[in-house]
Amino acid sequence: MAPALKIGIAGLGTVGASLARILSNRHNKLADICGRPIEIVAVSARDASKDRGIDLSAIQFYTNPVEMAESADIDVFVELIGGQGDPAFSAVRSALSRGCHAVTANKALLARHGVELAGIAEENGVLLNFEAAVAGGIPVIKAMRESLTGNSISRVFGILNGTCNYILTEMERNGLSFEDCLKEAQRLGYAEADPTFDVEGNDTAHKLALLTSLAFGTQIAADDIYLEGISNISIEDIRAADDLGFRIKLLGVAQKTESGIEQRVHPTMVPKNSVIAQVDGVTNAVAIDADVLGELMMSGPGAGGDATASAVMGDIADIAKSRPGHQHGPVLGRPAVHLDPYARARMRSHEGGYFIRLTVEDKAGVFASLAKHMSDNDISLESIVQRPGKNGANGNGDKKTVILVTHATMEDSVRKAVEAISSDGYLLDKPQVIRIERPDS
Amino acid sequence: MAPALKIGIAGLGTVGASLARILSNRHNKLADICGRPIEIVAVSARDASKDRGIDLSAIQFYTNPVEMAESADIDVFVELIGGQGDPAFSAVRSALSRGCHAVTANKALLARHGVELAGIAEENGVLLNFEAAVAGGIPVIKAMRESLTGNSISRVFGILNGTCNYILTEMERNGLSFEDCLKEAQRLGYAEADPTFDVEGNDTAHKLALLTSLAFGTQIAADDIYLEGISNISIEDIRAADDLGFRIKLLGVAQKTESGIEQRVHPTMVPKNSVIAQVDGVTNAVAIDADVLGELMMSGPGAGGDATASAVMGDIADIAKSRPGHQHGPVLGRPAVHLDPYARARMRSHEGGYFIRLTVEDKAGVFASLAKHMSDNDISLESIVQRPGKNGANGNGDKKTVILVTHATMEDSVRKAVEAISSDGYLLDKPQVIRIERPDS
Repeated sequence: MAPALKIGIAGLGTVGASLARILSNRHNKLADICGRPIEIVAVSARDASKDRGIDLSAIQFYTNPVEMAESADIDVFVELIGGQGDPAFSAVRSALSRGCHAVTANKALLARHGVELAGIAEENGVLLNFEAAVAGGIPVIKAMRESLTGNSISRVFGILNGTCNYILTEMERNGLSFEDCLKEAQRLGYAEADPTFDVEGNDTAHKLALLTSLAFGTQIAADDIYLEGISNISIEDIRAADDLGFRIKLLGVAQKTESGIEQRVHPTMVPKNSVIAQVDGVTNAVAIDADVLGELMMSGPGAGGDATASAVMGDIADIAKSRPGHQHGPVLGRPAVHLDPYARARMRSHEGGYFIRLTVEDKAGVFASLAKHMSDNDISLESIVQRPGKNGANGNGDKKTVILVTHATMEDSVRKAVEAISSDGYLLDKPQVIRIERPDS
Repeated sequence: MAPALKIGIAGLGTVGASLARILSNRHNKLADICGRPIEIVAVSARDASKDRGIDLSAIQFYTNPVEMAESADIDVFVELIGGQGDPAFSAVRSALSRGCHAVTANKALLARHGVELAGIAEENGVLLNFEAAVAGGIPVIKAMRESLTGNSISRVFGILNGTCNYILTEMERNGLSFEDCLKEAQRLGYAEADPTFDVEGNDTAHKLALLTSLAFGTQIAADDIYLEGISNISIEDIRAADDLGFRIKLLGVAQKTESGIEQRVHPTMVPKNSVIAQVDGVTNAVAIDADVLGELMMSGPGAGGDATASAVMGDIADIAKSRPGHQHGPVLGRPAVHLDPYARARMRSHEGGYFIRLTVEDKAGVFASLAKHMSDNDISLESIVQRPGKNGANGNGDKKTVILVTHATMEDSVRKAVEAISSDGYLLDKPQVIRIERPDS
């Protein structure tokens, strides 16, 4: 059997602890599968004395991960620190620069520095694996980087944030408001005390930026993403979606269009009978439209210590099965130096269906005016639902809800029509506009 | 750039032609990704003169695939001939024995000779890749062989035959009989003139045998599979399933139990709100229950020239990214010489829920007798539905349909109860028993 693969783990939170458990419980099986044992020889964490249920006696302990990356006798540097900047960045860069492989679960780091790090890995003939950075334990990076090599990808989209999907699922199931479901998610540990990063779509955007690069062979462009979170989604929207045969999911979507590549994160109507509409709770899902294969869909646990550790372990095993001097496939699917610049498609050029919910005064002429603005902007309607508003249900007929579902149209037209409607002065509430996405399956 | 990877393709049907197209259309991109060009240098087919839309002028042509495997100047032998025996078997064996990598889409061959061929590949330090052999373009082999290395798997199940799933979907959608939907599937090219192999579950069984080996590290046991096809499923079953919140799918299921490993292929009730229940038409799906990760679900095109070629291409690209002398991971997830013998669990020991549909005489005492037989066999019931039978709807009250859904119980108990009910003499039709499977998602 070949000599052991020596790994150093930076960050001993829930993921690190779960990874250490796997490596210990499955030690012999992993050695059999990989042709050599895998040994943790170094770890870094802030506090050496904390009990993490891991025996650290034979392991070199560092308080500084960069120092571990620079000097520990390791083959693989496993970065579980998090954060887009230092020390994670310096540590991974140092490890790769001296010919150590690296495995990371850090989407923020890669969204910011992924191309640079991929280039360093490729110059040094080592791997930078990051399956855990997107959709947790779902092997979407491997599928895109390896399995779909023969395909051109036209669209990739997914439920990439478990917090948001949990909240939307609970709103629908229990008829509760966003705020109530957020509180419940916080109580259960699915949402942070400050939930902004999850519910406003930033976390989804980081993951989407990586999928976009893999899908289209472009440089990572995490700042060029259209962003809309779920905090404005009301129970009225969810009910109206249900009536019309849709569910609302926060999707990250990257799509090739004639004018460039769209990257967008927003609440999205998906048909109820699509596979992705059934993905509930904290589960994640990714769908990939590939020219030769067709649509590939994957779903599974997208977060949590164990799911993340499962993906990190797969990445380490891939390295363990390779041998020093072996040539590796490119980190981002295509060599970093050959990645195309990212050409952003303007959001106003986006084409698709739209759900528009308007609260209007219940008086003569309002409906005719709505219809005229739609027609003026060349928007053709798939369905129109009109019902009494919140007050109307109590016999007070001065409010009405109008829901319009459009056929495929241009975002620019929808914005113009909604602006024109707003300026007519009979809207009693902020208009709600939700994009529709149609999976192939 | 490294020298070209030279491949020989045996079999130039739709898959081979699609593969040749990909290799030609994406030639430069593939070279960039893999670090070397991939060239078709040899092909074998029965008829050299047939026009397949591929330029064969610079390619060595063989009419005998075994001769090509033995003597062509190739790095990779791509077997697209099909069939569990020769010439496919001899050809792949010869190629591996002389140190050529092999890629195959042939589930029948691997279900029969997979362990022997894996052993030969491992002895010779080459790869035997077979992503296309199970669920077409869905990267389930890679997920199980590589991504889930850190997990113990307790169950794997899936919709592995597009023909059956198409027929069941159409029966439900259009309220048609099995026979009518089969005819339509044949007309559309989704079913063979002799559909036995698909509709009776043999094709699913071959694929399941490979998943079982990967999931549990056991030798392939394609003959030890409990088999029940879909030809006995009636529109009444589908309607009753729908009423009770289920859909019927032909599943292949492999499951670890206390008494061994179950391998079973049968029509299965899955809850309507599960992700797999939404997988319609010819689409395939596989779900994997893994201890660290949780449940991973993948769905996509499971057959057809392009989907198969996409998977074959991914397998070839993996080889192209490796270099001569590189150590590879084991073919079946664990080295062939270390695979455990397959220990079959008796079907009578299977535990799960059951749907039982009985057509009985509409007379006093019948229901009490049913209930007694259930109780005598310790079967507890989740739901009981009783409705007029076929004649009853016309006012003729002599027939009644009784549907029982059990809580988790033992197959042996269900069989005994149904036998006892049958021997009471008031059944007017063959009893229908369909197992229930509950996915985690």
